[in-house]
Amino acid sequence: MTEQKQLTELKDLGEFGLIERLTRDIELKHKSSVKGVGDDAAILDYADKQMVVTTDLLVEGIHFDLVYTPLKHLGYKAVVVNLSDVYAMNAVPRQIVVSMAVSGKFSLEAIDQLYEGIHKACEHYNVDLIGGDTTSSVTGLTLSITAMGEVEKGAAVTRAGAKPNDYVCVSGDLGAAYAGLQLLKREKEVFLINPNSQPDMSMYNYILERQLKPEAAKDIHNALKENGIVPTAMIDISDGLSSELLHICKQSGCGAKIYEDKIPVDAQTVSFAQEINMDTTIMALNGGEDYELLFTIKPDDIEKISKINGISVIGKIVPKGDGCKLKGRGEGEVEIRAQGWNAY
Amino acid sequence: MTEQKQLTELKDLGEFGLIERLTRDIELKHKSSVKGVGDDAAILDYADKQMVVTTDLLVEGIHFDLVYTPLKHLGYKAVVVNLSDVYAMNAVPRQIVVSMAVSGKFSLEAIDQLYEGIHKACEHYNVDLIGGDTTSSVTGLTLSITAMGEVEKGAAVTRAGAKPNDYVCVSGDLGAAYAGLQLLKREKEVFLINPNSQPDMSMYNYILERQLKPEAAKDIHNALKENGIVPTAMIDISDGLSSELLHICKQSGCGAKIYEDKIPVDAQTVSFAQEINMDTTIMALNGGEDYELLFTIKPDDIEKISKINGISVIGKIVPKGDGCKLKGRGEGEVEIRAQGWNAY
Repeated sequence: MTEQKQLTELKDLGEFGLIERLTRDIELKHKSSVKGVGDDAAILDYADKQMVVTTDLLVEGIHFDLVYTPLKHLGYKAVVVNLSDVYAMNAVPRQIVVSMAVSGKFSLEAIDQLYEGIHKACEHYNVDLIGGDTTSSVTGLTLSITAMGEVEKGAAVTRAGAKPNDYVCVSGDLGAAYAGLQLLKREKEVFLINPNSQPDMSMYNYILERQLKPEAAKDIHNALKENGIVPTAMIDISDGLSSELLHICKQSGCGAKIYEDKIPVDAQTVSFAQEINMDTTIMALNGGEDYELLFTIKPDDIEKISKINGISVIGKIVPKGDGCKLKGRGEGEVEIRAQGWNAY
Repeated sequence: MTEQKQLTELKDLGEFGLIERLTRDIELKHKSSVKGVGDDAAILDYADKQMVVTTDLLVEGIHFDLVYTPLKHLGYKAVVVNLSDVYAMNAVPRQIVVSMAVSGKFSLEAIDQLYEGIHKACEHYNVDLIGGDTTSSVTGLTLSITAMGEVEKGAAVTRAGAKPNDYVCVSGDLGAAYAGLQLLKREKEVFLINPNSQPDMSMYNYILERQLKPEAAKDIHNALKENGIVPTAMIDISDGLSSELLHICKQSGCGAKIYEDKIPVDAQTVSFAQEINMDTTIMALNGGEDYELLFTIKPDDIEKISKINGISVIGKIVPKGDGCKLKGRGEGEVEIRAQGWNAY
């Protein structure tokens, strides 16, 4: 039996009431957060550090489908995708501001869940929520998050520093979030045909979690620092390995050669790719939403990197004229393209 | 004769092409903008200064109606409303990040206009555009802007510092933006009934401009500085004088008494209010979108403030127990309320 709960309409609280509720328990943790929510602007003091700033906009129907995305997970993920960009600059996230446009179809209880996810991510990544804006929308939910992080002066790592002979490295494994999304889409179709079906997706819990509750590469960031490795270039994988590698090559003015058999893919991703008759490598190259770090290191750092768990060396940087290529498991090589990469 | 122009669909450029086009001519002006658009995040260095951060979300159909809002003006205004918050902290705006969700109904030429307005505001207020996000939307246009500004350590002015006997001041005049909006709404109704009507709104160009192309109080900020005045509390007027005064009273733990005959209202606002049979004072108190500064000063600063053009002293701060009141032109006093303020 499901209990019938009385839901609260947002308009009963008003904007100020809602903001007060969503931000009531916030305690600022960082010295750099001088003043948070509650004035025209927040005040920050980074002293002798530099700041990195990044922003992301998530739109219902474009970036997420609430049929299979729990609001708590959505809130968590919306924060994580921004923090991932901060780590990709070799910086440590410190603050976020969160704006939300929300239609009348959402209850206060729904928004509470969304913010539970946001607060949980702030806690996990030790980040202060310092401001935002809350407004109505005509339809659906839009979330806009801006994240700020700190880095020692001059220590930020951009996409532009890779040089020939540098090793190309990637954290974690790739393609799982894309596989999880395809699984969710498939089960949604099944559900629409037969609403009484109870899907058993337990054998795929890893790829589901990668889609619904991704994490930013905090541990890898820390491990690199502990082992004295400063990447020469770095980017986070949101649009897929192919696309991100091309960004590094373009901005560093170089080429790259990566090896198919070195690309890290989880066993569940492989199983699911086989189940839906899709090439696993294509999934890993173009899937996206991995929020892993793709980075290059100096040749001398290859021994240090081998000491860190969860990092794969997948290839090398080459001169620009040699292009950006994937060496397949067989003989051939293919040019890497950002979109519509062709199977060989 | 109107020339038929071929409009370009956004999907023909793709996300990266669009970003490249919208950000191609950007030159960073501030030393604090170390790196702008083009990486996972921008890099800022505020050295010995503190930073203020504020954000606003503007949604089509809620905050603007494209029937009477030219996209160029919308872009300009979207920046201004954020800079206004920065000035309200006694800070100088330095950077913005701009995110946009846009549906297929918008052409590239339309988005170019929007960005023309954004760039124009950046130029006028000497602000660097350092990043953002661009995405599709299911319907309509959503703009999210985060602005950053600099302030000497400890010099930020919050809403919390007003004390009894401080004077209450306001810049510019109030109610005009609201009057302009009512005029535009009325003309839209007329247009819907008779699309051939050509409205003559030239006698109301001031109130129209206040609605369509508001400015942030940069000059007042500078004048206060030049005259050695540091407000004890400050807020910008976006939701209306009543609402903002109550914010200051609540956060400063005090009351206020303001005088109806001191509230600055432009002659066009008075004329239009009479035309639509609305009380001018209600318009000035509750209209909002003025983007003027409401601030309090120490009693000793009253002579200095009289030297600055465009500032009205409208009342005084009183002890909390005396409440927040408006002294009318006649005998009576009324309690100020944030919403639904009642005529006396």
